[in-house]
Amino acid sequence: MYWEGRRLYLLDQRLLPHKIEYRCCISCDDVIAAIKEMCVRGAPAIGISAAYGLVLAACKAVSDGHNSRQLQQHLFAASLKLRQSRPTAVNLAWALERMEQWLERHIDANPEEICIGLEREAYAIFEEDLENNRLIGAYGSELVPEKARILTHCNAGALATAGYGTAIGVIRAAHEQGKKVHVYVDETRPLLQGARLTAFELCEEGIPATLITDNCAGYVMSIEKIDLVLVGADRITRNGDTANKIGTYALAVMAHYHGIPFYIAAPLSTIDLSIASGKEIVIEERSSYEVTHIVDRCIAPEGMAVFNPAFDVTPAALITAIITERGVVHSPDRHKLEKLFDYQN
Amino acid sequence: MYWEGRRLYLLDQRLLPHKIEYRCCISCDDVIAAIKEMCVRGAPAIGISAAYGLVLAACKAVSDGHNSRQLQQHLFAASLKLRQSRPTAVNLAWALERMEQWLERHIDANPEEICIGLEREAYAIFEEDLENNRLIGAYGSELVPEKARILTHCNAGALATAGYGTAIGVIRAAHEQGKKVHVYVDETRPLLQGARLTAFELCEEGIPATLITDNCAGYVMSIEKIDLVLVGADRITRNGDTANKIGTYALAVMAHYHGIPFYIAAPLSTIDLSIASGKEIVIEERSSYEVTHIVDRCIAPEGMAVFNPAFDVTPAALITAIITERGVVHSPDRHKLEKLFDYQN
Repeated sequence: MYWEGRRLYLLDQRLLPHKIEYRCCISCDDVIAAIKEMCVRGAPAIGISAAYGLVLAACKAVSDGHNSRQLQQHLFAASLKLRQSRPTAVNLAWALERMEQWLERHIDANPEEICIGLEREAYAIFEEDLENNRLIGAYGSELVPEKARILTHCNAGALATAGYGTAIGVIRAAHEQGKKVHVYVDETRPLLQGARLTAFELCEEGIPATLITDNCAGYVMSIEKIDLVLVGADRITRNGDTANKIGTYALAVMAHYHGIPFYIAAPLSTIDLSIASGKEIVIEERSSYEVTHIVDRCIAPEGMAVFNPAFDVTPAALITAIITERGVVHSPDRHKLEKLFDYQN
Repeated sequence: MYWEGRRLYLLDQRLLPHKIEYRCCISCDDVIAAIKEMCVRGAPAIGISAAYGLVLAACKAVSDGHNSRQLQQHLFAASLKLRQSRPTAVNLAWALERMEQWLERHIDANPEEICIGLEREAYAIFEEDLENNRLIGAYGSELVPEKARILTHCNAGALATAGYGTAIGVIRAAHEQGKKVHVYVDETRPLLQGARLTAFELCEEGIPATLITDNCAGYVMSIEKIDLVLVGADRITRNGDTANKIGTYALAVMAHYHGIPFYIAAPLSTIDLSIASGKEIVIEERSSYEVTHIVDRCIAPEGMAVFNPAFDVTPAALITAIITERGVVHSPDRHKLEKLFDYQN
């Protein structure tokens, strides 16, 4: 994604890997639609997009002649609307909260100053995410042995973030260090982010990879082809429970059964200390169409009932470590996760 | 499938649920092609098809004027070719062996008698499979509680057998008894036999069912929506290890983790006492196209490497019971499985 001339350009991820097409968002509503339709997806990428959505809301309000007080009211309303576009990933709320905090600190700024300030804040969120991914990559790559065979699920790559990626960032860093890793890529139904996006990123980067169906992962573990599992996250609660793309939980259970380390790679912006455990995470259910149709062709009997949760929750007990930009948290728990934030305060 | 005027009509399962089209096999090679291309699939259905394939080979040889000795030689060669059409499911070899045994018992028959005899034997295999499925249904339904929520994978239904089905036969029997079961159907990538075939059969029968992606199964277990897992089998070894559609092993691991009973439903023709354990089972690997393309549309980057095993092996230790036409074998092992065959000898 990129920001140019006060417009947000989002690479339409639904069209990859066959079509590279940017969607131009000129309003906050455009950004909301892009998030809901999953033109942009991935917890950090959604957060950055939402921050720019708020900038677009500010630009519009200024050109409509709102005064500072009207502008602030308008922006808090826009922020609420953005926040509701998808429920599970916390980075969305985190980025908007940060934007709102900027607003609160600059209550006396004039409209144009607010626009410029919010634009700078959104850019800072973008830049910090990129930097955090590189740090996650550096810390995480220490956990990756030479010639490691890594299983990943969904896409926690450059496309899901400002760039570089979280889980894919770790893989990228290990590859850059010459570790000769090999990646098994779960295709990740229903929307096939593994087959379409992760496979695409790894091919572009020249990182050796093999695509498998999701239900093949257990078998690949059983024939001793996997050394570690590495995925991203959409929300990590205070105790370390982690919401991520549907199917992640099953991988964690199977990794546990096979004695394979299971790692989460995510920035601190994905950690939600306000929630005690995974039971409190709202799991988004999406349209049955995503399951009954693949590339717009129907694969099931008409009218078939579907259950289509977009995420699941992996309990902390099944997570070997969480890799963050402040280091690796082994056997995550409340105490260790809270400590991560100490520097900030 | 049906046999009429010395032709085998196979419902082309690749076109379901949207198109009901029969493929007419007039030669043994037609049957081999239909098995390889998975126009017909499901271990028992493959076995029955192969038996009729041998009948077609006999008819052809007779019309070509072969004498009895030539015919026998021709048929043993055809049987070998049929046997090699797919490697994992043992019912194929079992049915052909039974046909060969008939041949050996009727070494003095004239060509037309051989044709008629083989035709009768193939029909007997078909009829017995149907009867066995009803017995499996009756025995298995005793394991199904009222209002049970059952998870199934792939298609072990009427389409995979002579009719009625093995795993689906058990579900059908429980439904007929008014048990108000609800079935969660794994879509079963890559060829989507769950979404296309099992969903179709359950809809036709009016059995309540919900379609899920394969990677959703673990989550559905974790939120306590599954009372038992019930699947078919392609080959059961002497010690109870069971090959079935890729993804079955992962379900067994997850059922074990969640304390959910895991049942295999299969006729004795699926049990291969000649093999000591699952390690000896040949796992068929199929074309990468099945994974990179869905309904003929490409979903992955061009040239992407793929690993596409069609089956996996579930160790006996993860199997609560095997349901056969001779009753239920709890905690299967060599002794119990061998005992099942005692009546026969």
